[in-house]
Amino acid sequence: MHLKQSPYIFVESLFSLENWHMKFKVKVLGIEAGRKLMVIIDDKDASLLGVRTSDRVKITYKDKSIIAIVNIATRFPRNTIGVFDEVCSKLGIERGDEVEVYPAKSPESLAYIRDKIFGYELNAQEIKAIVKDVVDQNLSDIEIASFLTTLHVRGTNMDEIEALSRAMVETGQILEWEDHPILDKHSIGGVPGDKTTLLVVPIVAAAGFTIPKTSSRAITSAAGTADRVESLCPVNLSLEEIRDVVKKTKACMVWGGALDLAPADDLFIQVEYPLSIDPLLLPSIMSKKKAIGTDYVVIDLPTGRGTKIKTIGEAQHLARNFIELGNRLGIKVECAVTFGEQPIGFAIGPALEAREALQTLMGKGPIDLQDKAINLASMLLEMAGVDSSRDKATEILRTGKAEEKLREIVAAQGGNQYIKPEDIGIGDKVAKVVSNYDGKVLWINNNDIVQIAREAGAPKEKGAGILLKVKIGNEVVKGDVLFEIYAERSQKLESAFALAEKLKPIGIGQRYDIMIMSRIPARAKQERTFILER
Amino acid sequence: MHLKQSPYIFVESLFSLENWHMKFKVKVLGIEAGRKLMVIIDDKDASLLGVRTSDRVKITYKDKSIIAIVNIATRFPRNTIGVFDEVCSKLGIERGDEVEVYPAKSPESLAYIRDKIFGYELNAQEIKAIVKDVVDQNLSDIEIASFLTTLHVRGTNMDEIEALSRAMVETGQILEWEDHPILDKHSIGGVPGDKTTLLVVPIVAAAGFTIPKTSSRAITSAAGTADRVESLCPVNLSLEEIRDVVKKTKACMVWGGALDLAPADDLFIQVEYPLSIDPLLLPSIMSKKKAIGTDYVVIDLPTGRGTKIKTIGEAQHLARNFIELGNRLGIKVECAVTFGEQPIGFAIGPALEAREALQTLMGKGPIDLQDKAINLASMLLEMAGVDSSRDKATEILRTGKAEEKLREIVAAQGGNQYIKPEDIGIGDKVAKVVSNYDGKVLWINNNDIVQIAREAGAPKEKGAGILLKVKIGNEVVKGDVLFEIYAERSQKLESAFALAEKLKPIGIGQRYDIMIMSRIPARAKQERTFILER
Repeated sequence: MHLKQSPYIFVESLFSLENWHMKFKVKVLGIEAGRKLMVIIDDKDASLLGVRTSDRVKITYKDKSIIAIVNIATRFPRNTIGVFDEVCSKLGIERGDEVEVYPAKSPESLAYIRDKIFGYELNAQEIKAIVKDVVDQNLSDIEIASFLTTLHVRGTNMDEIEALSRAMVETGQILEWEDHPILDKHSIGGVPGDKTTLLVVPIVAAAGFTIPKTSSRAITSAAGTADRVESLCPVNLSLEEIRDVVKKTKACMVWGGALDLAPADDLFIQVEYPLSIDPLLLPSIMSKKKAIGTDYVVIDLPTGRGTKIKTIGEAQHLARNFIELGNRLGIKVECAVTFGEQPIGFAIGPALEAREALQTLMGKGPIDLQDKAINLASMLLEMAGVDSSRDKATEILRTGKAEEKLREIVAAQGGNQYIKPEDIGIGDKVAKVVSNYDGKVLWINNNDIVQIAREAGAPKEKGAGILLKVKIGNEVVKGDVLFEIYAERSQKLESAFALAEKLKPIGIGQRYDIMIMSRIPARAKQERTFILER
Repeated sequence: MHLKQSPYIFVESLFSLENWHMKFKVKVLGIEAGRKLMVIIDDKDASLLGVRTSDRVKITYKDKSIIAIVNIATRFPRNTIGVFDEVCSKLGIERGDEVEVYPAKSPESLAYIRDKIFGYELNAQEIKAIVKDVVDQNLSDIEIASFLTTLHVRGTNMDEIEALSRAMVETGQILEWEDHPILDKHSIGGVPGDKTTLLVVPIVAAAGFTIPKTSSRAITSAAGTADRVESLCPVNLSLEEIRDVVKKTKACMVWGGALDLAPADDLFIQVEYPLSIDPLLLPSIMSKKKAIGTDYVVIDLPTGRGTKIKTIGEAQHLARNFIELGNRLGIKVECAVTFGEQPIGFAIGPALEAREALQTLMGKGPIDLQDKAINLASMLLEMAGVDSSRDKATEILRTGKAEEKLREIVAAQGGNQYIKPEDIGIGDKVAKVVSNYDGKVLWINNNDIVQIAREAGAPKEKGAGILLKVKIGNEVVKGDVLFEIYAERSQKLESAFALAEKLKPIGIGQRYDIMIMSRIPARAKQERTFILER
């Protein structure tokens, strides 16, 4: 079919399909959207331009142009485009400048998201395109929410998980090391008070292996490892500084958040959090391991009531997936299924936990924490070829070599090498919660403990938290202290205390005399917990 | 377990769990978010307050308080809360005022959305809560996107569809009429040039039945019925005005958008559109019918390649669902599966279609349009108990009674009763597209036709559109005009012409000599069509 020029029009210039546009005056909103390129226009202008919320526009000013996501406001000044700071700086525009705005196509990756919604498997290139557009902030929150919901509901097969992991690695910083192997440990989280990393890293490094550990801060918990370590020394180190620390000590314990390792993950978390879904658990964790150059990693899967993983069967299934994904990425993975139905040790909250970890390294710590640390460390040493690895790990801890190594790391990261447990500042507002019964501790509700610690100010206020005085199986008599709440401000202590009164996080009784585990009313308003820690 | 007051704190006042808060200074953003209550705070303040994007906060000023959705900006002024206009007016605050901000719980409906994500069926109360929170703007776009994606992926059973429909009715305006039955027709859309409503409404009203028709404007198409009718008379009438028009003429043809009938739908569409999904087709259509008081409705399901419904099997399945949902809602539904593989009549675009509809009522219209209108009208008349309904409908159209009725309606709605087809203004920029081959018209690509009409300016520019000169099966010789493009502006005509050249929307050949229907390259960038019309 041929399209003949009619006598009615004279088409002399070459024209593009995108030449329909409008001119807008710039209104600077003075808000940074968080890297996403966004603009606001009035709904009537939007309808004239032919765009709707979440559509893309090309904005041209002088010789520069960008693609931005449209937000539509009602009763916004006409012929005016409200721009977030990122758009201003990219285009070099100021208030009152005139820009040209063209409707633009949605990114190709949106079509792939739709494919997944409609049930098609995505290939590696398609997944890469989606992840890249997430990192480049080319996808709107609506689109990312739909993608993550679809991943959750439809599930992902191992090819997709591998592709997601690789894409998350490739869109971020990748660390390279001269010496190998690189060892690592990771917990999928879900159990409060888990300061095991603060012991495992020094044990492994003291055994002569390299373990450059990056950790996250708490998202929904009372303390992340980075929060805990920060009570001992700075954790916000640059890549250069990290290399120096690792060179000196064979280890580090730093915050990974600013290192741009698998940055897609942080952007996904922003949308997963309000939805309380976590469809990217495997790629999220393993992409960070790959980016940091890990060769051997032990993954801790805390299991049981009150954790992410409720049954050993589930844990085994997840473990197989971690191992298979590791194979595909060239990382040797072993998993530890650990008991997670009560906090590890007694302390919950950044400073309280740092104190407990230091005490344990100094020989005066709780047995469960010691046992967990020795087991995880010895698994790693065994993977790296150490014979009698359990004895070795135990010896390193018992003889103070692990403590010495921790102090080296603390010093190298800019902390006080000679820090004593009592130097670690904890909240000076304290409330004790006592038992009103005689009996045994039957259970400790992890989530309630976390909520109370957070109400007290953790993790932001490092000195806030909970110090348990009892664990499951302990005998108590009426009047015994069950736990202490620490806070930095009276107001927060009051809130936490009130919450403790409401939640009653520790169950006391004779064995088997509490048969009802949960009561579900006909018209339930169920309180649900969501643990988003990686 | 009893929580005993410790000597360390003195709890004298009653305190609530929500007493942790911060004070913020108000920064008025001067933007209306579109009813949603939103505020912006800096990420460091957010982390102190313990909230993340999409979390809720309670904002208190003097004796007023509201719950708003938090958006987090980077490098926003500290201790400052950016407020959209809706928040200002609800709280009565101005720039510089100091407000108290408390973390608040997410709405209960979010837990139900999560239930659906996790695979649970929702009951009527839960669905009502979600729809109500959508209408009250208590759910963020992320949450609505996740809900709609889940509905699409998991599907909805008839109980859920019924509950969605009822909830959408109950959260909006409901019309009541003194006279019954109320008749109605609806097309699920997807075929261009479908101006059938402009004929069916006058035929049915001329037969003595009440048919107060509300229509939508185009979303993704070249013209909605409201856009078409607007070329004849005003369509943006108040409820009072509609009652008057219906009283005088037994009918109306108005825009339903401002009547607040099932308002949830418009809010869902804002999120469905960027995602190109349409999980609420049934409740969306039927809730509007219920809200307007419909007793009998014929639903037109245009079927075939290039429409929403590809096969007659699919159409029958959807028809059964419409009929069952109608039963549950107390509406008698019949469905018509109609041929949708090419435009109805020859005209595409608001004014061109209005002109063709008027010509058809005046006895000089295309046979397919006449046939469709007579069939749909006679189905409705039969449902209402009219004998020989087809003869009756045909007679009303042929004798000019339908034309007369249309003119009554046009006059009652404030238009010119004596309007002639040539009075309807169409674009004065015209391009003709001619065939370069001899042969038959084998196919007409609906979507391409729509895209070209939209590129020419439809539906916003009412005079823009396409006038076909051939339909499927017509013989053409080289040089014959296939279609004309009309536009109001040269620039848009040029764009549309270029798009026509690229898309080649009409296939000419000898029967069976074009065997390849579509070519799919290895690395496909597939252009996909999405029809979101209800």
